[in-house]
Amino acid sequence: MKKVYLDYAATTPVDPRVLKAMIPYFSKKFGNTMSLHSFGQNAKTATEQARQVLAKMIGASPEEIIFTSSATESNNLVLKGIASAFRQKQGQNRGHMIISTIEHPCIMESAKWLESQGVEITKLPVDKYGLVNPDDVKKAIKKNTILVSVIHASNEIGTIEPIAEIGKICKETGVYFHTDAAQSFGKIPISVKEMNIDLLTASSHKIYGPKGVALLYVREGIKITPLLHGGGQESGLRSSTVNVPAIVGFAKAAELCLKEMEKESKRLSRLRDRLIKTLLKIEGVHLNGHPQKRLSNNVNIRFDFIEGESLVIQLDLQGIACSTGSACSSMKLEPSYVLLAIGLKREEAHGSLRISLGRFTKEEDVKYFLKVLPPIIKKLREISPYGKKY
Amino acid sequence: MKKVYLDYAATTPVDPRVLKAMIPYFSKKFGNTMSLHSFGQNAKTATEQARQVLAKMIGASPEEIIFTSSATESNNLVLKGIASAFRQKQGQNRGHMIISTIEHPCIMESAKWLESQGVEITKLPVDKYGLVNPDDVKKAIKKNTILVSVIHASNEIGTIEPIAEIGKICKETGVYFHTDAAQSFGKIPISVKEMNIDLLTASSHKIYGPKGVALLYVREGIKITPLLHGGGQESGLRSSTVNVPAIVGFAKAAELCLKEMEKESKRLSRLRDRLIKTLLKIEGVHLNGHPQKRLSNNVNIRFDFIEGESLVIQLDLQGIACSTGSACSSMKLEPSYVLLAIGLKREEAHGSLRISLGRFTKEEDVKYFLKVLPPIIKKLREISPYGKKY
Repeated sequence: MKKVYLDYAATTPVDPRVLKAMIPYFSKKFGNTMSLHSFGQNAKTATEQARQVLAKMIGASPEEIIFTSSATESNNLVLKGIASAFRQKQGQNRGHMIISTIEHPCIMESAKWLESQGVEITKLPVDKYGLVNPDDVKKAIKKNTILVSVIHASNEIGTIEPIAEIGKICKETGVYFHTDAAQSFGKIPISVKEMNIDLLTASSHKIYGPKGVALLYVREGIKITPLLHGGGQESGLRSSTVNVPAIVGFAKAAELCLKEMEKESKRLSRLRDRLIKTLLKIEGVHLNGHPQKRLSNNVNIRFDFIEGESLVIQLDLQGIACSTGSACSSMKLEPSYVLLAIGLKREEAHGSLRISLGRFTKEEDVKYFLKVLPPIIKKLREISPYGKKY
Repeated sequence: MKKVYLDYAATTPVDPRVLKAMIPYFSKKFGNTMSLHSFGQNAKTATEQARQVLAKMIGASPEEIIFTSSATESNNLVLKGIASAFRQKQGQNRGHMIISTIEHPCIMESAKWLESQGVEITKLPVDKYGLVNPDDVKKAIKKNTILVSVIHASNEIGTIEPIAEIGKICKETGVYFHTDAAQSFGKIPISVKEMNIDLLTASSHKIYGPKGVALLYVREGIKITPLLHGGGQESGLRSSTVNVPAIVGFAKAAELCLKEMEKESKRLSRLRDRLIKTLLKIEGVHLNGHPQKRLSNNVNIRFDFIEGESLVIQLDLQGIACSTGSACSSMKLEPSYVLLAIGLKREEAHGSLRISLGRFTKEEDVKYFLKVLPPIIKKLREISPYGKKY
């Protein structure tokens, strides 16, 4: 059966060029970066070269990049690390953090955990496109606000947030600003300086690099408490044996993304727009997220009287992989909180489908999807008690 | 130049058979385990098969295995997770934990962190071989003791601790027992049931698997607070996109270790004993750690009037990689706290060398080492103000 992967927002295959760059570091250049001998020092050199590549890509210094095991870890480290450093300094006052209502589950759940530990959390609403209003950020900042964390681009609906405007406000008010760029890094140019970003999360497995590695940019001078204590790797901020092959792969993946960014963004935007245009011709179909301010690879579509999960399963039977929302929450029966946050009703949220394109998506894949989908929609609506009008 | 790697305790090369098992999961079977479609489900199946293999190896159920990114993470998760779960339940009483004085830095530093947060920590002394006395454990247990954590086999001196006896005491007194088996897993048979182990850490990159993956065994019914909040992976205990290729590699590595354990252990013991016997013939040379109760691949030797770091560097110039202590602390100028704990003076600790053997160590490597070492010792002693008597 033809297999068409349209779930690049969930994870991406490792690019063969990335894998090729990683291979020597598994069995030949396999040293521990903390070892004094040549095996160790070669591993260390490879890691530091990767750090330079990744730092340069966002306009940071290598010393400001910490490697972690995942975007989830980076995001947990930011929220908990900032909260803990503040508590060490301030004692009883646990501080206040501002996030949006459409953050990734790892930000949501970290914030929830911190709330249970006495940190005050404000969740900013978004408009019908999923946009955070920078004025809302400004209004929400209080005397004890220690962090604002807003996702750069939504993992579900692809909306790109006004990060630079929010960064400017945070800078003016002296509040740390973090952005989770797991979905945007490698796809949109990022400059931490120009955008006034203090902390930034980027992930490898979303950009054709391996799973198991991510980074956290921490602007020089910012104090965070580590999540992992131990041997003192990553300037003491993330102890653990350094995952050299994965880090080398991450850097190679980022390099390739940077090199191909402009061209690939145009190619994917064209495919995306064709998909959206064609899908919107079907009756009872609506676009979720912003029509223009969205990731070049993201399509999120709502079908009246359709259960998204059934749609995913029917598409899978035809060899097409896409999702109802974030992979992390796809196992849950709850409707997507991101879709609820943009004002959809529960049944509308349940009827949504995320199609995310990527490097290996070809025109013929989009054609195949557009051929396979309509009869499935028709069939599912026929068995829906409300869908018969179509 | 001939290259001889004798630092297998720091990290190991990935076995080519392991890498071969991993490769398909990078670019072909690359799905996110949380995705509903076939790419996701295939990734999930591979992960669950790996979980079964690893669980079986220590006599646990698959549901009791949590994958993490490193032994450091597993150890942090145990100490902080148990402390946090206790605090959630008990409020003001932060509890008491018992560790040994020769734990890995990640246990030491986690304990230190918890101490700063109000948890009471007892560090048990060891004898001159590095052995913890089970009676000391018994005496140290108090009403509010929530965890005993003792390393299974020392990463520095290779001493194997009386884990089953300590486990028995913990079971009888109703205290959770954790062992850090990063150095022993895959080398010594482990049964969590027979040894009464409640929590166990095992690492992949010490057994010819990839870096970036480890496991934590958590006996059914034990409550721990996660370090990483988010999408709810690993039964909610470790959110993060699941690192499928690394997990597949870890399981393959463990399988190979199990299959070859008896034969390999004998082979390495012979090489180890020949090394020790020959080295002890040199004047002013002493063995650190227990002569019998030690890992089959560990040699830790003390040279009078020698600076270990210079020795490591001189050996490296001859293509031989070994270390002064744990890789994690090899960058520090402080003497090894493990060697101080077994009663060595600072200068004695500074004069120690860890030689750790492994799967790809051949007789000729040991011969080469034994040929290269004596002239280096002679030379270093000649330039030492105290070493001239030899």
